[in-house]
Amino acid sequence: MSLKNQPPAQTATTANANVQWGGRFAGGPSDIMQAINASISFDKALWKQDIAGSLAHAAMLAHVGIISKDDEAAIRKGLTEIGAEIAAGDFAFSEALEDIHMNIEARLSERVGEAGKRLHTARSRNDQVATDFRLWVRDAIDGLDQQVASLMRALAQRAQEHAADPMPGFTHLQTAQPVTFGHHLMAYVEMLARDRGRLADTRRRLNECPLGSAALAGTSFPIDRAMTAELLHFDRPTANSLDAVSDRDFALEYLSALSILAMHLSRMAEEIVIWCSSPFSFIRLSDAFTTGSSIMPQKRNPDAAELVRAKTGRINGSLIGLLTVMKGLPLAYAKDMQEDKEPVFAATDAAALCLAACDGMVRDMTANTRQMRALAGSGYSTATDIADWLVRVLKVPFRTAHHVTGRLVARAEAQNIGLAELTLAEMQAEEPGITQDIYSVLSVDASIASRTSLGGTAASNVMAQATRWLDALAGTPIPTKG
Amino acid sequence: MSLKNQPPAQTATTANANVQWGGRFAGGPSDIMQAINASISFDKALWKQDIAGSLAHAAMLAHVGIISKDDEAAIRKGLTEIGAEIAAGDFAFSEALEDIHMNIEARLSERVGEAGKRLHTARSRNDQVATDFRLWVRDAIDGLDQQVASLMRALAQRAQEHAADPMPGFTHLQTAQPVTFGHHLMAYVEMLARDRGRLADTRRRLNECPLGSAALAGTSFPIDRAMTAELLHFDRPTANSLDAVSDRDFALEYLSALSILAMHLSRMAEEIVIWCSSPFSFIRLSDAFTTGSSIMPQKRNPDAAELVRAKTGRINGSLIGLLTVMKGLPLAYAKDMQEDKEPVFAATDAAALCLAACDGMVRDMTANTRQMRALAGSGYSTATDIADWLVRVLKVPFRTAHHVTGRLVARAEAQNIGLAELTLAEMQAEEPGITQDIYSVLSVDASIASRTSLGGTAASNVMAQATRWLDALAGTPIPTKG
Amino acid sequence: MSLKNQPPAQTATTANANVQWGGRFAGGPSDIMQAINASISFDKALWKQDIAGSLAHAAMLAHVGIISKDDEAAIRKGLTEIGAEIAAGDFAFSEALEDIHMNIEARLSERVGEAGKRLHTARSRNDQVATDFRLWVRDAIDGLDQQVASLMRALAQRAQEHAADPMPGFTHLQTAQPVTFGHHLMAYVEMLARDRGRLADTRRRLNECPLGSAALAGTSFPIDRAMTAELLHFDRPTANSLDAVSDRDFALEYLSALSILAMHLSRMAEEIVIWCSSPFSFIRLSDAFTTGSSIMPQKRNPDAAELVRAKTGRINGSLIGLLTVMKGLPLAYAKDMQEDKEPVFAATDAAALCLAACDGMVRDMTANTRQMRALAGSGYSTATDIADWLVRVLKVPFRTAHHVTGRLVARAEAQNIGLAELTLAEMQAEEPGITQDIYSVLSVDASIASRTSLGGTAASNVMAQATRWLDALAGTPIPTKG
Amino acid sequence: MSLKNQPPAQTATTANANVQWGGRFAGGPSDIMQAINASISFDKALWKQDIAGSLAHAAMLAHVGIISKDDEAAIRKGLTEIGAEIAAGDFAFSEALEDIHMNIEARLSERVGEAGKRLHTARSRNDQVATDFRLWVRDAIDGLDQQVASLMRALAQRAQEHAADPMPGFTHLQTAQPVTFGHHLMAYVEMLARDRGRLADTRRRLNECPLGSAALAGTSFPIDRAMTAELLHFDRPTANSLDAVSDRDFALEYLSALSILAMHLSRMAEEIVIWCSSPFSFIRLSDAFTTGSSIMPQKRNPDAAELVRAKTGRINGSLIGLLTVMKGLPLAYAKDMQEDKEPVFAATDAAALCLAACDGMVRDMTANTRQMRALAGSGYSTATDIADWLVRVLKVPFRTAHHVTGRLVARAEAQNIGLAELTLAEMQAEEPGITQDIYSVLSVDASIASRTSLGGTAASNVMAQATRWLDALAGTPIPTKG
Repeated sequence: MSLKNQPPAQTATTANANVQWGGRFAGGPSDIMQAINASISFDKALWKQDIAGSLAHAAMLAHVGIISKDDEAAIRKGLTEIGAEIAAGDFAFSEALEDIHMNIEARLSERVGEAGKRLHTARSRNDQVATDFRLWVRDAIDGLDQQVASLMRALAQRAQEHAADPMPGFTHLQTAQPVTFGHHLMAYVEMLARDRGRLADTRRRLNECPLGSAALAGTSFPIDRAMTAELLHFDRPTANSLDAVSDRDFALEYLSALSILAMHLSRMAEEIVIWCSSPFSFIRLSDAFTTGSSIMPQKRNPDAAELVRAKTGRINGSLIGLLTVMKGLPLAYAKDMQEDKEPVFAATDAAALCLAACDGMVRDMTANTRQMRALAGSGYSTATDIADWLVRVLKVPFRTAHHVTGRLVARAEAQNIGLAELTLAEMQAEEPGITQDIYSVLSVDASIASRTSLGGTAASNVMAQATRWLDALAGTPIPTKG
Repeated sequence: MSLKNQPPAQTATTANANVQWGGRFAGGPSDIMQAINASISFDKALWKQDIAGSLAHAAMLAHVGIISKDDEAAIRKGLTEIGAEIAAGDFAFSEALEDIHMNIEARLSERVGEAGKRLHTARSRNDQVATDFRLWVRDAIDGLDQQVASLMRALAQRAQEHAADPMPGFTHLQTAQPVTFGHHLMAYVEMLARDRGRLADTRRRLNECPLGSAALAGTSFPIDRAMTAELLHFDRPTANSLDAVSDRDFALEYLSALSILAMHLSRMAEEIVIWCSSPFSFIRLSDAFTTGSSIMPQKRNPDAAELVRAKTGRINGSLIGLLTVMKGLPLAYAKDMQEDKEPVFAATDAAALCLAACDGMVRDMTANTRQMRALAGSGYSTATDIADWLVRVLKVPFRTAHHVTGRLVARAEAQNIGLAELTLAEMQAEEPGITQDIYSVLSVDASIASRTSLGGTAASNVMAQATRWLDALAGTPIPTKG
Repeated sequence: MSLKNQPPAQTATTANANVQWGGRFAGGPSDIMQAINASISFDKALWKQDIAGSLAHAAMLAHVGIISKDDEAAIRKGLTEIGAEIAAGDFAFSEALEDIHMNIEARLSERVGEAGKRLHTARSRNDQVATDFRLWVRDAIDGLDQQVASLMRALAQRAQEHAADPMPGFTHLQTAQPVTFGHHLMAYVEMLARDRGRLADTRRRLNECPLGSAALAGTSFPIDRAMTAELLHFDRPTANSLDAVSDRDFALEYLSALSILAMHLSRMAEEIVIWCSSPFSFIRLSDAFTTGSSIMPQKRNPDAAELVRAKTGRINGSLIGLLTVMKGLPLAYAKDMQEDKEPVFAATDAAALCLAACDGMVRDMTANTRQMRALAGSGYSTATDIADWLVRVLKVPFRTAHHVTGRLVARAEAQNIGLAELTLAEMQAEEPGITQDIYSVLSVDASIASRTSLGGTAASNVMAQATRWLDALAGTPIPTKG
Repeated sequence: MSLKNQPPAQTATTANANVQWGGRFAGGPSDIMQAINASISFDKALWKQDIAGSLAHAAMLAHVGIISKDDEAAIRKGLTEIGAEIAAGDFAFSEALEDIHMNIEARLSERVGEAGKRLHTARSRNDQVATDFRLWVRDAIDGLDQQVASLMRALAQRAQEHAADPMPGFTHLQTAQPVTFGHHLMAYVEMLARDRGRLADTRRRLNECPLGSAALAGTSFPIDRAMTAELLHFDRPTANSLDAVSDRDFALEYLSALSILAMHLSRMAEEIVIWCSSPFSFIRLSDAFTTGSSIMPQKRNPDAAELVRAKTGRINGSLIGLLTVMKGLPLAYAKDMQEDKEPVFAATDAAALCLAACDGMVRDMTANTRQMRALAGSGYSTATDIADWLVRVLKVPFRTAHHVTGRLVARAEAQNIGLAELTLAEMQAEEPGITQDIYSVLSVDASIASRTSLGGTAASNVMAQATRWLDALAGTPIPTKG
């Protein structure tokens, strides 16, 4: 008996029934093939982009005379109606038709007959999907960019509010020097501004139109690629047809930008989790951004922050996943590239959620400024100010000043007192030149006020920085509510 | 004006309308929180495991007297009915109830009243979800293990069929030495056997029951954890309650095993793609496992193989994603860990599809043995046999024999002929001791037949190896259809 | 002019001079090829394994009569002397000889002449490197396993010391329920025990000997693969020669195990960093495991813990890197696989350092039990004990008890007092059945003492668990110094 | 007995002696700490940047009067001499001094005394290392950018040479439509141009100077950050001191750009491997870029291409490794960030090697144009041309034309002949309107010549595109040798 007559699909029925994919391949090879091959379950997300691309393509075909004006009118009417059907939830997606492109084209032929069958002239699914996906990513960038801008505004507004409120500045999570809470928040504004820059660069670089590259070699029809590019708001057509259908750089660069953005948000989220912990108690989140426990009724868990922190994993995983897909693929199009969409969709969804949650938490959180101020002054946080005083006033070389300060801290620590509680005599025992003036630099407020160097934590710096950013962001369209 | 009165949810409405998450947060913070926090959209996949866990827990509570027999009977009846509702698609999942655990418990209280409210005694969602998820992964392992076994059978059967059919053995994709096609296929059987071993080890290590660890500290109720463990077919209860609710090793080890499995399948898929290419033409896949083109009607694209190769990305991404989630999480449970399920579900689905597709392709493919044999003899593939003959017959040291052979190949190459076409005189010009006997080792069949060392490519070896595996696999339950 | 006459090496000289690879390719293609191809700079780490493998191979060749006893004696003497040269640092490694295998073989021929040229009979670099690398990984597993065991001992010893010392048990980094510090430490013992299990499984699965698989097809020489396997302490020879030279599962499984181990250590490290922070102050590390600051003399930074946390990145990167290398490689050996060693070496080094640092920190740290106890009782951490009392004593259904407890916590919070400070009347206002007895469950010590369920935090459990582990670990060879 | 008196270093001595890290920690905690903490073994690569940064800092300190002109002169002299020492290999790096910054500063104080101790005024290692590392990455970008440009030139030159030579254009590695070899090569030029764009954007975004941010809060000294920024050729100082010392975006963005570049090169490498395989035989590499075998003397293995393909893994691993390191780090500097350099160094080295190897291979390879042309016409590769003819000439709707063409291919396949060998009668049996003219579109050359759409494969297009790129690249400084 030939092995080939054995139904391979048998294998699939082995799947344990309580696993979700159980029984899916019961009907034989065609079921397996359809299950692995069809993309309609996820690429229907591209429907608007697919219709927009087809409208532009049809307009161009008519413009150059490849199809008639009447055909183009019929196609436009048909596609517009199909768009309405999909938007209304009335469109019956078919897995047998594999993907969104074939679903819409088949429906078009149903609706408008021969004209519909002329739409695919001078293009291929390869350039069609590349066009649709670029349009989708471009839209996603625009949406996320608005969200990032909103979060920047939220941070800068809170930074204005807390421009002068001290908190312990940490390195290694050890108290280092006093900073202001506003200054700390503004650090995230800088990070997010770079994120916007990366998104903008990605958008600019992706904004070339692959439509008209056809399967891989271009076409013999006298198409006008500049026209379709312009109709779809691309800056220009892509320059090499083989590259155009083989390229997913735009998705990878986008995922890279999201991975770095997610990393920033994970740092903010980690800080929120730590700040909400009982020993820190730097901030409090309202019920809107915390949850209770099924067994411990008193808990206010910063779940949203934890999920923001965690979703970094999903976004990094999407990036490395698509890098892995693309590794070593010969030109031109390979079906492997169909695995590009789900990671991009998943990462976009995660990033949008994380931005919304961070935006909400930043606006929601109440700062415990009393607690932050108290801790800002502990842990010998103004030791550096002593060293700097020694350099500035006594002209001691910095390295020497650093050692003298170390001995002063050791003296204070041995007595379990603060630096300001050391007597002048004790100070002078380490460095005879020290005068009463040194005490003027030992307070938290003096320390902060002195850091007026560009980018330093002095309140005036912070307020100016926050205001400058809010002015800059004012140019960003203000999001309005539904 | 207080910033806190500004609706943070505004930010979310900025999302471009044609991006799928647009408008989702229109209602304010509670929408954001629900969108990021609720897991019911994916963790409903755990419903069977959740009900099984609750049934075991209730039975134990009744056994030790924490709840009454009547309560347990009511709970059992209620849960059984809920299971039927879900199976029938009649259960109304609520996002407000967050997850599958609360959905089922709330429904239970609706159905059976007070008894339902006693079910959560001496447990917490933390140990409950850990239990459910272990059960799910265990089931998934069992399903995948069957699929791997089926694929091994398919390969061994094809290997028997082609135990003696020569093909060029490649290193660096350059013709190296002749091997048999069966031998090549059996290499994958060895790989897959290790995959089964890893899955089995993962299953064994995960097979400890966390139920009864409660939130993190255990419980003051006199529970019998050995009993619930046994009812759920675990080998034993977990030993430390903090670890039990903080641990996701089982998911990571499972994803690691799937990543290695996916790598194996990606190699097979790459070979299928190359073998199907026109210059190679080693095999042909039927229409059942190929697709056409929208513009090139003659294409038979090995899409299934390409998708198998690509899905490696998704599985690797799931692994690195969850490793990233777990990095640096303080004990015990953190909400970050809710991000454990989707990567596991996605990777399981991808692995199941890939195994089914490979199983189908292996059974489906037709080998072009004529083409493989022709190429097996080209490229001076029996040069090593000359070197070995020189060592064996003339006692030339191997390194010297290697150099002599190199010169013989150079002579043949210069004349653009095969090694067997060199005259004895030409042979002897390089090494005077060479006799007519050397020609006996220069054929593809002679080369293959001589490789009788353990694991070598001699047809008898291959047939024996394939038969031994098929015997071993016969113990595996045979998958049946429908 | 032919392009081929342009020296491609010109490109390399563009490298900016202050980048380390500048000028490396100045001499032309051969420099580029040597730079990318040679592996001696890193694979010399395999020298011991390579010599061991060659000794076993030679012994076998002599045993079956492929080489003479005299040749084998010469080879043995030569290899032994070469080993001494390398150990003494007197061996001149040559990049022109590419790798450790050719370096040693060439030196052997220099030393012992013809006999040396016979060594490579019936093997190839493909099976040779596979054998050497397995031996190296096996040795590394043995070394790391000892380190993990040592860390487990350190944790269990500290857990005995602190079996009854309360600390706040956290979920979401929010105070949840009191646990003991010993219990918390023992959670890591469980994690590490699983790590040892994974390492042991990896070792067992890799312990098959590829030697004798030759280039890919086996050999025509009458070798005895069982003998070489036994001499090298492998369990058996590998079963398929193609698989044997194409397989790097053992490296991937090893890296997977290290990634999970690193994740565990990153969690411990994160906790150490948080615990050392001023607001927590749960533990203190001595100067041996902290560092100072170049500008803030008072700092005691937990650098070792931070580096342990960070090295997770390197280990995860090594895993994903090698998974990426192996993706989609056709059989059999491809040069891509030379990229297997550096990630394995780097990850091994990182893991060994992290284990040593954690071992040191666990032994070094001083617990601030007073601070931990104080925080253990804050944050309504015994709320669950009220709920459980209501269930146990008043037979209130758990869900109802949970709601009652929530209201009691709200009452206490409104007055900013602890639960034990609520009057009985206030208690009864929420649940009339409450009696004075309820106050007996509200203390930290009572809460801990009540958690006697298997794996629960009761001190007696913790002490028993720690002792059981120390007994089990006593069987592990005790590491000795020097 | 106190556990703390047990030497933790004992653990480390357990390491198996033949593993490289064996015995490294023999001396106790200080050895472990030094081994994990010291970075001098790798960060000495920053020596030029560190000296440049210190020179700029000293010049600024003197300019604003914080140190004297004499001190600055002494520092400048000392640093210049130290640079000469390091360049000459005469500098004794000390692990006890931890890193390159302390090594140089300590040596400076040895050389110039008090002045040297004043250098560290108004800065910290945190801003110092951030500055040095940005400078290093900027230099690396400049070096790689030159290499990418060189590779683009090589490709465009070969594309001019082969602008009209047909090869089979593949999708799914199945023959799709004829393209020219030059067109295929130009696809890589487009990819590499995007890589240069990403590198340039990364360079622009990183080009802000963190120096003067001090530990995290700025400084009280009246420094001039604009001056140091300008001296070091940065565009401006960073705006927020906390962000400046916490930020490693530049390294991540750089690694992202390298990952996408590596992916491109891996595709080229995969194609080279496949093209060099015997069944394809599209190209031949000379001995300069291939290697032989230890056992098969006839092999010409494309090792360089395989290693290029494989090094993708290392670069991806570096990216994901550093993303993992940065995930969830609280502000400001944490020691975790010391793990930033080795992945960047490793990825840079790998990328530079891969670019040099690809550059060399592209210039070295000889195209087998006869073989490519022969295959370009096989596999019904001009089927699309029939469909397009039907649309263009007979005005058949494309979808209908596609079906007609499918039937024609089926007819030809059934007779095992080419499309051009079908008789006109056979053609007309499927579509009566077909005329003799259709045969004019069935040749490879006609097919290629017809693809004149923008970006299409017509030879004139390809030549124009290659020439345009070579002109554009002519502006790039030409790398010169030695």
